[in-house]
Amino acid sequence: MDNRQIGIFDSGVGGLTVTAAIAKLLPHEHLVYLGDTARLPYGTKSAETVSRYAVQATHALMRFDVKLIVVACNTASAVALPVLTAALSPVPVIGVVEPGARAAIDATRNGRIAVIATEGTVRGGAYVRAIHALKADAKVEQKACPLFVALAEEGWTEGDVPESAARRYLSDMFAQQNAPDTLVLGCTHFPLLAKAIAKAAGGGVTLVDSAETTAREVARLLDEHGLQRKGPAERALFLATDAAERFARVGSQFLGNAIAPDQVELIDLAP
Amino acid sequence: MDNRQIGIFDSGVGGLTVTAAIAKLLPHEHLVYLGDTARLPYGTKSAETVSRYAVQATHALMRFDVKLIVVACNTASAVALPVLTAALSPVPVIGVVEPGARAAIDATRNGRIAVIATEGTVRGGAYVRAIHALKADAKVEQKACPLFVALAEEGWTEGDVPESAARRYLSDMFAQQNAPDTLVLGCTHFPLLAKAIAKAAGGGVTLVDSAETTAREVARLLDEHGLQRKGPAERALFLATDAAERFARVGSQFLGNAIAPDQVELIDLAP
Repeated sequence: MDNRQIGIFDSGVGGLTVTAAIAKLLPHEHLVYLGDTARLPYGTKSAETVSRYAVQATHALMRFDVKLIVVACNTASAVALPVLTAALSPVPVIGVVEPGARAAIDATRNGRIAVIATEGTVRGGAYVRAIHALKADAKVEQKACPLFVALAEEGWTEGDVPESAARRYLSDMFAQQNAPDTLVLGCTHFPLLAKAIAKAAGGGVTLVDSAETTAREVARLLDEHGLQRKGPAERALFLATDAAERFARVGSQFLGNAIAPDQVELIDLAP
Repeated sequence: MDNRQIGIFDSGVGGLTVTAAIAKLLPHEHLVYLGDTARLPYGTKSAETVSRYAVQATHALMRFDVKLIVVACNTASAVALPVLTAALSPVPVIGVVEPGARAAIDATRNGRIAVIATEGTVRGGAYVRAIHALKADAKVEQKACPLFVALAEEGWTEGDVPESAARRYLSDMFAQQNAPDTLVLGCTHFPLLAKAIAKAAGGGVTLVDSAETTAREVARLLDEHGLQRKGPAERALFLATDAAERFARVGSQFLGNAIAPDQVELIDLAP
């Protein structure tokens, strides 16, 4: 038993979809979330910059005496996980890429998997490596879909605009012969657009969202190390590096629960 | 006569639309452009953060011994121009808001002006103030259109997606009685979407783009102070704070001319 908090880190509000899955599966855990809103988006930045920012941000979370850190940002998971694991040791670090890859392998029947993500995640190729590590003969196709991030942030999750964007990004990929039967939502913003994405991908395609599989990985790790919290549920704390009001407003959509403005604290990550 | 460079600053690649207008009007001027790509977008950040970043970025431009600085970023022009003017004195500083407001006043016949911009520019209200300073009885409506930024960056400037986005943002505003007859593109990304925006606004609406009026203001100021360059044209220099390759690739669309990868230099703005 360990009553310390679980730290969750993302470049902005996207990781709140992962936070929602963790809160649902592990309602007794006390969560502290940091969104590096002053420096988002990470998806268009170089690997070096993302690594530097991610180390600063997770160090700030360590001040909350956390027992586990979840990197709920695909870009940071994809390019900075080894650096973060070393920097935060002995606190265990979980990314979202490996759980997403595992879920894709479990879901596919024809061995063909599509991954959609930000430019940074696609360029880094982490999903391709993680999937091949689990199943060497899987066929993996990637596609950067940066506009989905803006659509989710704008709250335009249904209707003409997300549907035509999804068609433009995905129809070629799923119109081909031997198309993938599994589509990994490799960015924490994308689950909000799941309906439009599923419509563009077509009937037989399974969407894989790393939020739930990451939550299960957190549960497994707490169990393995005897780190579960036994205390009563406590209200999560949210930290943002800029624009706390916007964080509460836009973030509520991602969390699926209202975030009160006084639940968000501004912090400064300047080194 | 003054052969020093003109410094142009933006949060990213958007200010290259202004740069293109300056290069066209003043082909002999030597231009140095800084895009703060590591910290974009400015449009969702607080006024304090934008001011701090803009001062750091323009100080970096001052090292190039510039004779004039153009703040080719609506958000920074809207919230940080007084701070920048004080910080860079005696080098003159030109923003894009005042020229855009002046062009709108010249264009409107019914005195009703719509302004579309980022969230930060809209929240700051600088266009409303600048328009009212020139014409106190003008009716001004604002609308934040953040998705247009993502569309321009993605290069999706024509077709279904930008057209349905423009309809979703603008149709209510222009369907009303006594609708605005003039629409200010209050973000340097938006001129790339002019066709889709004009279609959504409808026939009788004049689009105002501050790029050309800002270029004319630069020409006027050089003339007034006798600062024109007489030397032969030189290739512009581009500075970016991150992801130089992406800057060259995406920026070429905004500039309307290819930017060679070796024309972009990475710089660090850490204080």
